[in-house]
Parts: sequence; structure tokens; C-alpha cells
Amino acid sequence: MIDFDFVSPTKIYFGKGKESQIGDILSDFGAKKVLIVYGSKRIEADLLPLVLKKLEEKGIAYLIHSGVRPNPTLDFVHKGVEIAKSNNVDFLLAIGGGSPIDAAKSIACGACYEGDTFDFNLHIASPKKALPVGVILTHASAGSELSNSAVIQDDERQIKQGFNSDFNRPAFAVENPELTYGVSAYQTAAGGSDIMMHSLERYFDPSDDDQLADEWALSLVKNTMKAIKDALANPTDYQARARLMLNSSLSHNGVTGIGKKFSFVVHPIEHALSGYAPNITHGAGVALIFPAWAEYVLDRDLTKFAHMAEVLFNIKGDDLKKMAIIGVTSMRQFFASIGMPTRLADVGLGEKDIPSLAALATGNNTRLIGCCHQSLNMEDVKAILTRLL
Amino acid sequence: MIDFDFVSPTKIYFGKGKESQIGDILSDFGAKKVLIVYGSKRIEADLLPLVLKKLEEKGIAYLIHSGVRPNPTLDFVHKGVEIAKSNNVDFLLAIGGGSPIDAAKSIACGACYEGDTFDFNLHIASPKKALPVGVILTHASAGSELSNSAVIQDDERQIKQGFNSDFNRPAFAVENPELTYGVSAYQTAAGGSDIMMHSLERYFDPSDDDQLADEWALSLVKNTMKAIKDALANPTDYQARARLMLNSSLSHNGVTGIGKKFSFVVHPIEHALSGYAPNITHGAGVALIFPAWAEYVLDRDLTKFAHMAEVLFNIKGDDLKKMAIIGVTSMRQFFASIGMPTRLADVGLGEKDIPSLAALATGNNTRLIGCCHQSLNMEDVKAILTRLL
Repeated sequence: MIDFDFVSPTKIYFGKGKESQIGDILSDFGAKKVLIVYGSKRIEADLLPLVLKKLEEKGIAYLIHSGVRPNPTLDFVHKGVEIAKSNNVDFLLAIGGGSPIDAAKSIACGACYEGDTFDFNLHIASPKKALPVGVILTHASAGSELSNSAVIQDDERQIKQGFNSDFNRPAFAVENPELTYGVSAYQTAAGGSDIMMHSLERYFDPSDDDQLADEWALSLVKNTMKAIKDALANPTDYQARARLMLNSSLSHNGVTGIGKKFSFVVHPIEHALSGYAPNITHGAGVALIFPAWAEYVLDRDLTKFAHMAEVLFNIKGDDLKKMAIIGVTSMRQFFASIGMPTRLADVGLGEKDIPSLAALATGNNTRLIGCCHQSLNMEDVKAILTRLL
Repeated sequence: MIDFDFVSPTKIYFGKGKESQIGDILSDFGAKKVLIVYGSKRIEADLLPLVLKKLEEKGIAYLIHSGVRPNPTLDFVHKGVEIAKSNNVDFLLAIGGGSPIDAAKSIACGACYEGDTFDFNLHIASPKKALPVGVILTHASAGSELSNSAVIQDDERQIKQGFNSDFNRPAFAVENPELTYGVSAYQTAAGGSDIMMHSLERYFDPSDDDQLADEWALSLVKNTMKAIKDALANPTDYQARARLMLNSSLSHNGVTGIGKKFSFVVHPIEHALSGYAPNITHGAGVALIFPAWAEYVLDRDLTKFAHMAEVLFNIKGDDLKKMAIIGVTSMRQFFASIGMPTRLADVGLGEKDIPSLAALATGNNTRLIGCCHQSLNMEDVKAILTRLL
């Protein structure tokens, strides 16, 4: 086990109707003037009136910054920072999934910083302070409601880049599974794939052989796979939606990788994809890349791939390589069965895009992706993406 | 999944030499005047000089309240509250295992309360405020370093009683596995048994069939069983000690029972035992009681007992009852193999003590232990303890 510091302070309010407590919750956290951040018209119609009423009942002032898109933009964040600073906002409330939450986190850090908030994403500065962020979750996917991560897209430079800081950990997350009943089949599957990948990436992190974290990661993946299938079969299956929502939070707060490093491989490649083509849903992108990545690096960690095959797909045997290959094939079939893309063409990309994508993912081959024996350079990324033609 | 609120805000500083950061950590948390709580002479000799030096370097004032015994007493807590109040202490620092931590938590709540701190244990009041508590952990066992629980013994009334509150969650826990190298074989085994039981109790909680929490609970138990054996074989096995320490924290912060109720059964019976005979080590007490309890309630939840048998002891088959019985027998053998008691006589008790013990555990048959179909009354407790003659 490596040395580490770990904190996951977010308070979860989980269950039916919990969003109606939002006034009390914000009061308990001392909020006086809240900037509400959300994206979709669905939020505006379904949830916003209730939230505003509850804030008004508690005498909490608010401003609204709406219209954040999937893969939230630096431009949206800049405007939010301006609103927060000029109005002395003391709390952010994100309503939605990963995009408004990541935007709210970036605004919260930017509001307490003199420079440009994208400095954090470019790793030329670290936040020393941030406004607190609360969340009402309406999509199970990114895990941003508990994570220390915020990913922002700079359209101008075509860079999608995240940064990790405990200042990015939300103060609270309100999680009512019923609020996700309306999520489409495609977004449910993509969200579920993203949840799976947050723990799979931790499982395959080669920094330490921490057996408990690894077992927890695989159990979460297995449990999520079943919940995706159940939710697709019946979108109002409460248990399935509850499972996806809680797994979203537990898969990316760090506990499934505790005692190990945090070195993601599939995510950075996907960030290049959806940075390059922002119409790509992040969860669909990771589902697309995982099997190709896995086949490319299989031989570097046969034991782990074989163990994944056994736990997730009940594949047994003595031939680790055979087990590993069947496991990855099974995973590709699983993603296909829930409607995820399996070829670059499925997301509107092709051979001509591969050099740009590989360059974006590796900063023009100036940085490696992943750590230890699993590191990848630009040529590796090209080879992985070529498998998706 | 049931509705729930969950928070585990404790920051973990894990690894070799982390205790030397205690001055910086307390500074970061804003401590100005710290009350240090510990028990043993080992702490005083090995750790205290370093801690005091680090506090002095940072200009942090401190007072010392030492001599807490295993199964910490209300008397010790009362004295601590008096010191904290009369000196305007703003932070508690517990050094040790469950006893000093539970004492520090109770002092922290009592220092912000006008009445008697045992009101919380008797559930006639709830804390509304508490001083922050930090921990330097030197024994992997109680999980108090992250839990919301504090258990205190009132010698006068012979009541050992805990209370749960998020105000009991420590602000931070410094965890250096090397600090547990000196823990005796008996205390290592008892501590490990306590760790196992915190997740086993959650696993057997019948309030909800939450498969992920249940799988996480059993993986933690299995991982802990291996770590106990490894640490007993080689007391300076860093990986084993690290595993026990982190499992101590993760087994009782609530994550292995998230989405379920919190209804312990073996613990309350043990609290009667060590309340009645304070020389009993709590972890040894739960190891003693578990197999007898399990055999008594086996038929109420055969599927769960059989699944435990399969995961922990690789017992397979179609006959659930047979699997369950072999599982419980295997667990009894495991506890015996690590030197835990298997009969009441092993802890100095006998048939004549059973009526008093059963009365203590159930408040003279005024309350049930456990919930749902697993509830136990005084006669049940007598029957369970009789199996231990």
C-alpha cells in the first residue's frame, strides 16, 4: 500500500423526495446567496420551481447561470466567475449531472482566485480556496457529485482538461433516484459505462496490488452492469436507478482505489475524443475505447485481466491469456448490447482524425498517459485508436 | 435501498512517519489549544515527546488528560469535560485506539453541552455541537477514528452504552501502520476480530438486500482474516499492518452498510459482557459471541449465512443449511486459531452470570436487540450465552 491522504467529506442525502429539503440543507450549510448552475430545459421545467420556492421560504438569495452544455466550456465558467465575484455569491448549487457540477466547481475555485480559472486545468496553479458547492443530482454518470475532479473544455484551444483538488469535493449531494427516471436509454447506458470505467481504471492502476480496493472496484462494476440492464429494461425500476446513482458517487470518490495511485488511461484518451468532437457523450467514449485499450495492453497484466474476466463474466480456467481475451471480448459485447459505440465511425470519426486525437491525448507526445508498465505514448494511442476503425 | 443520509468527513493521513506532520495538520484545522487524550505508558514513552515537540514548533498550546483505560469510563470523561471547559480548549487529540478516541469524542460533545454527557449515551439528549477531534491511531480495531460512534462505561451503574452522531466523526486520522508493530498477538487478533465484526454485523443486517454493500462487507472481512494471520506470523509485516489499519477505518465508517439500516446484534451483547466484566477485551468478546449467535439465528437467513460460507471459506453446494453450518463452524475455528476465546469460561464467566448479562443486554427485557426478523429478546440472549458454557 502506498502512502496517501484521503478525504471524501460530501454529505449524501439519498432517497425519494430529498430535493424538497434543499432549503433546509443550504441553510444548515450557511448559504446566504447562491448561484444556481444548470443546463437542460428539463431541469428548468421539472425541478427549478421547487428549488426556488424552497430557497425563498428560507430567505436564501439566489442568482441563476443556466445553459451549461455537455462537456462544459471555459466560456461558461468565465461568465459564472464574473457573476459570482460581482455579486458576492457565497455558495454554488449545481442541478444536473457532471457538466453543471464540473462547471460549478470551476466557478467556485475561480471565484476565489485572481488569475484565469483554466490555470488549474493547465496545472500552472492550484486552488487555495473555493466557495462551497452543493449538488442536486439528476444523472448517474460522472461521479462529480463526490469526486475531486472537474473537467472543462476550452473550445478555442480545443483542449478538454481536468484538474483534481480536494477543493473540488462538493459539500453535499442530494440524490433522489426518481429524478433519473426520465434519462434516455442512451444516456443511461453511457452514464453507466462511465460509472464502470471510474472503478475499472482504478482496478487496472498498476501502482499497487491492493486486493481490497481491487475487489471493491470489481464488485461495483459488476453491480453496475446489472443495474444498467435493469434500468434499460424498466426505466422506472427504483432499485436499479438507486444502484446507478449511489454507484456513480462511490465509483469516483476514490474509495475503490484507496491505497493506490490515481492514474487513469482510458479517460485521457476519451477527453481527446470529446474535446475534438464535443458532440460525443463522455460515457459512450470510454465504452468505445476500453476494449481497444484492453486488447493493446493485455499482455502487460494478464493476471488482472484474467481476474476481471472471472469476477465479471464467470470465466474460469488455467490459461490466463485466454481468460483475459474472453473477458475483454465479453466486455465489448456488453457495451454493444447496451447500445454503446464500438467503432470510431459510430461517433462520426475516422482514420483521418487519429493523428490529431493521439496528439491531443499526449500533448503532442510530450507526456505519457498512465503510469508504470502501462504508460502509453502517442504511437500507442494511435495504435489503440486504429483498432477502432 | 432505504432512504439515508451519509457523511464520512474524516481526512486520513496514511503512511510511514505521518505522525510527524501532526503540528502542520492541527494548524491546518485551526487548532489553538489542544487537549491530548491517551491511555497507555507505551504512548507516553514512544509518541508523546514527538507530538509535544511538533505542537510547540507550531505554537499550539496543549493540556494532557491521560490514563484512559480500555472500556473508557464516564468518570474519565467527566474530568476531561471539566478540563476542556475551564481551559477553553478548542480541539481534542486522541492518541491510541478506540478507548482514548471514544473518550475524546465524549469529552468533545460534553464540552459543548450544559447537562451530563452520559445523557447522549442514555439517548435522552442529542449533541447539537462538539469540539473537533483529531486522532493519531496506534491500534487497528474499533474503527472509532472514522465512525460516528462513542461507547462509554458507567462503572457505577454497570452500563456500557454507545451513542451515534455525526458530531462523533473525527476531523482527521493519522494512520501509520508501523505504530502498530508493537501491538501484542492477543490484541492484534482481538482488534482484527472487531474489524471483521463491524462489517459482518452490517452484512447480516436484514433491513435491505443491498448487494454491493454486502459484497464490500464480505471482501473486507476476508481481506482482514488474511491480514490477521499475516500480522500474527510476522508482527512487522507492513502490508498486513497497513491492511488492518485501513480496514479498521473502512469497516466502521458506514460504507460497508451504506443503503441499509444500522442495527447491530453481536455488539450490544458484547457490551453487556465487557460492561459487566471490564477486563474483557471487546474484540475478543465479539469473536466469542458471533458463532453462538450465528448458530442460534441461522435458520432465519440461511441464504446469507450460506453466501458468507462460500465467500469466506469457499464452501460450495446446494444445501444452504449445510453450507451455513459449515461456514459458522469454520468461523469458530478461525477465531480459535488466532487465540480468541470460544467459551464463557475463557473470559472468566459462567452459568451464574448469564441472567445478569442477558438482563444488561436487553435493559431487563425492555428492549429488543437487532431489527426485523432477527430481533432478540432477553430469553434469546440467555439461550445464545448458554451455548457458550
